[in-house]
Amino acid sequence: MKTIPALDALTACLGKLPGVGRRSAERLALSLASQPALRRELEAALSEVGSQVGLCSRCGALTRSGEDPCRLCSDPARDGSVVCVVEDPGAVLQIERAGAYRGRYHVLGGTLSPGQGTGPQALRVDALVARIGAESIGEVIVALNMDVESEATASFLRERLAALPVTVSRPAMGIPAGGGIAYSDAVTLGRALRARQAFDDAR
Amino acid sequence: MKTIPALDALTACLGKLPGVGRRSAERLALSLASQPALRRELEAALSEVGSQVGLCSRCGALTRSGEDPCRLCSDPARDGSVVCVVEDPGAVLQIERAGAYRGRYHVLGGTLSPGQGTGPQALRVDALVARIGAESIGEVIVALNMDVESEATASFLRERLAALPVTVSRPAMGIPAGGGIAYSDAVTLGRALRARQAFDDAR
Repeated sequence: MKTIPALDALTACLGKLPGVGRRSAERLALSLASQPALRRELEAALSEVGSQVGLCSRCGALTRSGEDPCRLCSDPARDGSVVCVVEDPGAVLQIERAGAYRGRYHVLGGTLSPGQGTGPQALRVDALVARIGAESIGEVIVALNMDVESEATASFLRERLAALPVTVSRPAMGIPAGGGIAYSDAVTLGRALRARQAFDDAR
Repeated sequence: MKTIPALDALTACLGKLPGVGRRSAERLALSLASQPALRRELEAALSEVGSQVGLCSRCGALTRSGEDPCRLCSDPARDGSVVCVVEDPGAVLQIERAGAYRGRYHVLGGTLSPGQGTGPQALRVDALVARIGAESIGEVIVALNMDVESEATASFLRERLAALPVTVSRPAMGIPAGGGIAYSDAVTLGRALRARQAFDDAR
């Protein structure tokens, strides 16, 4: 069967989404091509996101169009002396859901990835340094993921911020809630044991 | 964090795609909202599919706009006396890739699903019956999936076609290529053993 170029293009585009492999992308494209009503609904929803959702020019998190800085940046009840650095806007949403943080955010927009040509200038690092000077920030929590590229990015950030008058911290590493010792990997177990806490500190 | 309605709508829409659960849909929506260039690319690709891809009015498979009936229906080299009934256009593509079939197709457009209000009239069953009369079709291969709803749909089709002058068949059921006996489920093993083939017939 000859392929249809528009379908191949849709498959390629869907394959750029996180967690969507080649086979899933094709399955999604076929499903959308076969269901015109769903395809139109998705087109409209994307267009609506384009007009209703933007990125906060200060912290880089998602915001409603017209609300810039975003609500998190402009909320006077939040602690402006602490900024939590994350990789992407989804991380902001997840931390907010946890409800355990009341400071500000700064979205890097990715991680260092020399192989893919993502150097420091492609991330919002200079913007972070500028904010530290302008907003009297006293602590930077580097809350990146735990994979190799994120760890390299965290190390880079720590060095870049070393000369600035801020405390640089990171979330505690250890065994996740609900995680079993028998199913934890060696790195996690090693870190959790080395950073062991007095029993009364554990919540 | 207050949610953004347009983002919720996009998440809900993506969640209607096959194999996309609630969490994946949210992840995809966040990724699209955070990457305007990718969002625009997907919007354009969907619009292009809308204008370039259609469904064949005869067999229901995907076709280029303007090619109706599709190439599979109008190819004189294909055997018009056999029609293979499948659930969706993706199945046509997969069978064509296998290259082991040279007859025509008929896409049902789903399976019977009384719980979701999908009765026989929502499927292209009458169109199949009409084709059997009009196209001197001698054999109908019912190539639906192996889940419960598909099996019920196959049984329904067999009864509906019983009074017509056609042979109704289905693909052989058994252990898949590369499949291990130790990892096969009881239903598959039972069917494969009952339908055991003389050694020389196995290819």
